[in-house]
Amino acid sequence: MRACYCCATMSAATSSASYKRGRKIVLVMVGLPARGKSYTARHLARYLSWLGYPTKVFNTGEIRRSQLGARQTHEFFDPANIEGLRYRRDLAQQTLDALISWLHEDGRVGIYDATNGTRTRRTEVRERCAREGFAVQFVELDTEDPAVIDRNVRDTKLNSPDYAGMEEGQAVRDFRRRIEHYRSTYEKVADDEGSFVRIVDRGRKVVLHEIDGYLPGRIVFFLSNLQISNRPILLTRHGESMDNVAGRIGGDSDLSPRGREYARALAAYVDSRDDLRDSVDVWTSTLRRTLQTAAPLNREISQWRYLDEIDAGSCDGMTYEEIRRKLPEEYEARRKDKLRYKYPRGESYQDVIQRLDRVIVELERYRSPVLVIGHQAVLRTLYSYFMDIPLQRCPHVEMPLHTIIELQPHAYACVERQIQLT
Amino acid sequence: MRACYCCATMSAATSSASYKRGRKIVLVMVGLPARGKSYTARHLARYLSWLGYPTKVFNTGEIRRSQLGARQTHEFFDPANIEGLRYRRDLAQQTLDALISWLHEDGRVGIYDATNGTRTRRTEVRERCAREGFAVQFVELDTEDPAVIDRNVRDTKLNSPDYAGMEEGQAVRDFRRRIEHYRSTYEKVADDEGSFVRIVDRGRKVVLHEIDGYLPGRIVFFLSNLQISNRPILLTRHGESMDNVAGRIGGDSDLSPRGREYARALAAYVDSRDDLRDSVDVWTSTLRRTLQTAAPLNREISQWRYLDEIDAGSCDGMTYEEIRRKLPEEYEARRKDKLRYKYPRGESYQDVIQRLDRVIVELERYRSPVLVIGHQAVLRTLYSYFMDIPLQRCPHVEMPLHTIIELQPHAYACVERQIQLT
Repeated sequence: MRACYCCATMSAATSSASYKRGRKIVLVMVGLPARGKSYTARHLARYLSWLGYPTKVFNTGEIRRSQLGARQTHEFFDPANIEGLRYRRDLAQQTLDALISWLHEDGRVGIYDATNGTRTRRTEVRERCAREGFAVQFVELDTEDPAVIDRNVRDTKLNSPDYAGMEEGQAVRDFRRRIEHYRSTYEKVADDEGSFVRIVDRGRKVVLHEIDGYLPGRIVFFLSNLQISNRPILLTRHGESMDNVAGRIGGDSDLSPRGREYARALAAYVDSRDDLRDSVDVWTSTLRRTLQTAAPLNREISQWRYLDEIDAGSCDGMTYEEIRRKLPEEYEARRKDKLRYKYPRGESYQDVIQRLDRVIVELERYRSPVLVIGHQAVLRTLYSYFMDIPLQRCPHVEMPLHTIIELQPHAYACVERQIQLT
Repeated sequence: MRACYCCATMSAATSSASYKRGRKIVLVMVGLPARGKSYTARHLARYLSWLGYPTKVFNTGEIRRSQLGARQTHEFFDPANIEGLRYRRDLAQQTLDALISWLHEDGRVGIYDATNGTRTRRTEVRERCAREGFAVQFVELDTEDPAVIDRNVRDTKLNSPDYAGMEEGQAVRDFRRRIEHYRSTYEKVADDEGSFVRIVDRGRKVVLHEIDGYLPGRIVFFLSNLQISNRPILLTRHGESMDNVAGRIGGDSDLSPRGREYARALAAYVDSRDDLRDSVDVWTSTLRRTLQTAAPLNREISQWRYLDEIDAGSCDGMTYEEIRRKLPEEYEARRKDKLRYKYPRGESYQDVIQRLDRVIVELERYRSPVLVIGHQAVLRTLYSYFMDIPLQRCPHVEMPLHTIIELQPHAYACVERQIQLT
C-alpha cells in the first residue's frame, strides 16, 4: 500500500507519522556556478522543514573552505589541475558521505549542493544513492541570462570567504574564469538520467522528467513558483478586537475603539511609503477584525479563507482561564506540545501549516509587495517560514498587536524590522 | 492590482466574484490524432467547471460530423486533397469563432480541441485570441508509445460515428492513415510560440513554458497529475452515527449499532472482491464515525482532514428543525442557495470544493482502487466532480447511508453502480 504523505502531516490524529514511511530523497543540485543553486537549495530546505520534513543542505564549498581555508583562486578549479581535481573529487565524496549518514539517521530529504556538471559524476551519485535505498531527483538550474548570472555573482559570491579582502573587479574576473573551467566539461541532464526537474531562466521554462509521488510533486510545484525577489512582505495582526479586550479566543468580533485607531494608523503608514502606496497588495482573512483593519486602506483587498485564525473548535469563544478550569486535560496537553496539540474539533499548528502552504507558494510567486493582515497563530506560522524558525518554536513566536513586521528577503535570509504604530 | 483568484472562489464572503476579473483563457490543444487530446480536454473542462470556472470544449470533429455527416475516410484528411484542406480550414475557423463568441459572453476558459499541428495555424490562433483580449496557452500531447496510441484508437476512435458500421481492422487501418496525413506536416510547439505545456508519454516528461498566474498554474498542476486509469473509485458514507439517529448535523459521534453492522458488511464486501481485497486503499476523514466504519477492514488507512464533513459552524450539533426555529434567516438563506450558503463561522459547499481540490488531484494521480469513507456533503462534492454534475445541483445529489457508490472511469465518462449493503 502506498503512503499518502499529505495525510500524516495534515492530521495530528494520525497515529503513526506515516510520511516517514515514504522513501527518503536525495535532491542533487546541478548547474554551473552562479546559477542560483545554493539560493534554491536553501529555500527548498526552509520550505520542506517548515512542512515537517527534516531537510538539510550539504554544500561542497563549505567543506572545502573548512578544510583548506578560503581563497582558492580559479586555478584550483581548472580541470587541467590534476591535484585540484583529485582534491575536489575527494571533497565531493566527503560531502555526499555526510549527506548519506545524516539521511540514514534523522533526515527525510538531503540536498546535495554541488556543481554535478558531468554525466559521469551524476551517474556515480545516482548509483550510490540507489544502493543506499534513497530516491534521487536532479534539480538543474540552467540560464545564460547575463543579468541573472551577474546578480548571483555580486549578491552571493563576492560575499563568500573565497574573496574576502580581494578587490571587486579582480574577484569578478576570477569567478568568471572559475565558471569557464566548469563550463568546459558541463553536460546538461539527459532524459535517460532518471528523475529530474530543470528550471530554465528562473522559471520561464520548467522541464519535469519522471516526477512521481506526492512529495516530489510538492517539491516541483514549489520550485516552479520560486522567484528571486526582494520586495518586502509586511505582516500585521488585525487591530485590537472586542474579544481581545475580553481575553476570548477565536470568535468573529468587531474591532475595539483602539483597534479602529490602529487601522487608521496602518493606512496612514502605508500611504506614507512611496514603495508601498501604489503597489502594495493587501491580503486579509475572511474574519471581520481583519476586514475592518483593512477598511481605511481604501483599496481592493484579497480575502483568503486560508488566512483565518487557527480553529479553536469547541474552545472557540472561551478564555484561556476558562479552558484551564473546564477542560484541564486540554489545557495541559496544549501546554506540553503546542505544535501538535489539536483543539477538540479544531486545528493544531501543524494543520495551520498545511493550509498555509498555498499562501506560501503564492507569496513566493508574487512580485509585488504584500501586506498580510492576519491573526496570531497564522502570522506566527508565516513568520516561521520566512525566518526559518524551527517548528517547535513556531507556536511561541512573539507577535504583538499594533505592530508591523516587515520582512525584506535577501539572497540567503530575510531581514526583519518591526514598526510599532500605536 | 493583480487579482488573487483562489480567494474569490474560496470565500463566499468575497463580495465581488473577483476571479472573473482575471483574463479569460483559451487552451489550445495540440497533437496528432489519438494522443488523448479530447480525453484531456474533457477532464480539464470537468475539473475547471467543478472549481467554479465556466469552461467548455470546442471540438472540430463534432462540428464536421454535424455538417458533413460522419464517415469521412482518411482521404478527406490528406493534405494533397485541396478541397478537403479548404473545408477543414473553414471548420477550424468556425470552431474557433464559436469558442470566441462563448468566451465573450459567459465563459472563463475555452478549450479548442483540434490538431493545431502546424506552427502557421497556431500563430493564426494565438494572434486572433490576443486581438480578442484572451490569454492563450497551448497544451501539447506528445507520445510515440504504440501501446498508448493503440489504446486511444480502440477506446475512443473506433466508437466514433466516423467508423460506425465499418469492420474493426479496416477502421484501424483507415485511422492510422489519417494519422500519417497529419504527421506529414506536424511541427512541435517551439519556445518562441509563447505559453505552453507539453505532456510527453502521459506525464513521464512535462515541459512548462511561460506559465504565469494562479489559474494557469492550477491547470498545469492538474495536467501533470492526470493519469489515464480505469481502476474503480468507491464512495461510501460512514455507517449510521448516533447523531444521524438524533437528526443532528456535524458533531463527532460514535456509530450506532446499525452503523457498526454496516461497517462489518462493508469489510466483508471488500474482502469478497478479488479486484479490491489486496489492492484497495482506504481513505477516511479524521472524524470518529468514518474511522469506526473503516475499523473492521482491518488494514492501514489514510486519514484526510480535507475529507472532514462540511463545517456547520455555529449550527454544529443542531437539528434542521432547530435551525429553522432558532435561526430562520439562516434556514431560509440556505434553502435559497445551498451551493453558496455559508454556515455562520462555518463553510459553504464552495469552500468544500476548494479544499477537496487536493483530494481530486491525488485521486487523478493514483493508480490503485480507492475506497473513500466520507460524509454526505464531501461525497456529494467528489461525486459531482466524477459524474460532471453542474455545481448548482451538487448540494442536492442523493447520497444514501449504507450504500457504496462505485465509479468506473471510462474514456469520456464514469459509469456508476450502487451497492446497497444493509
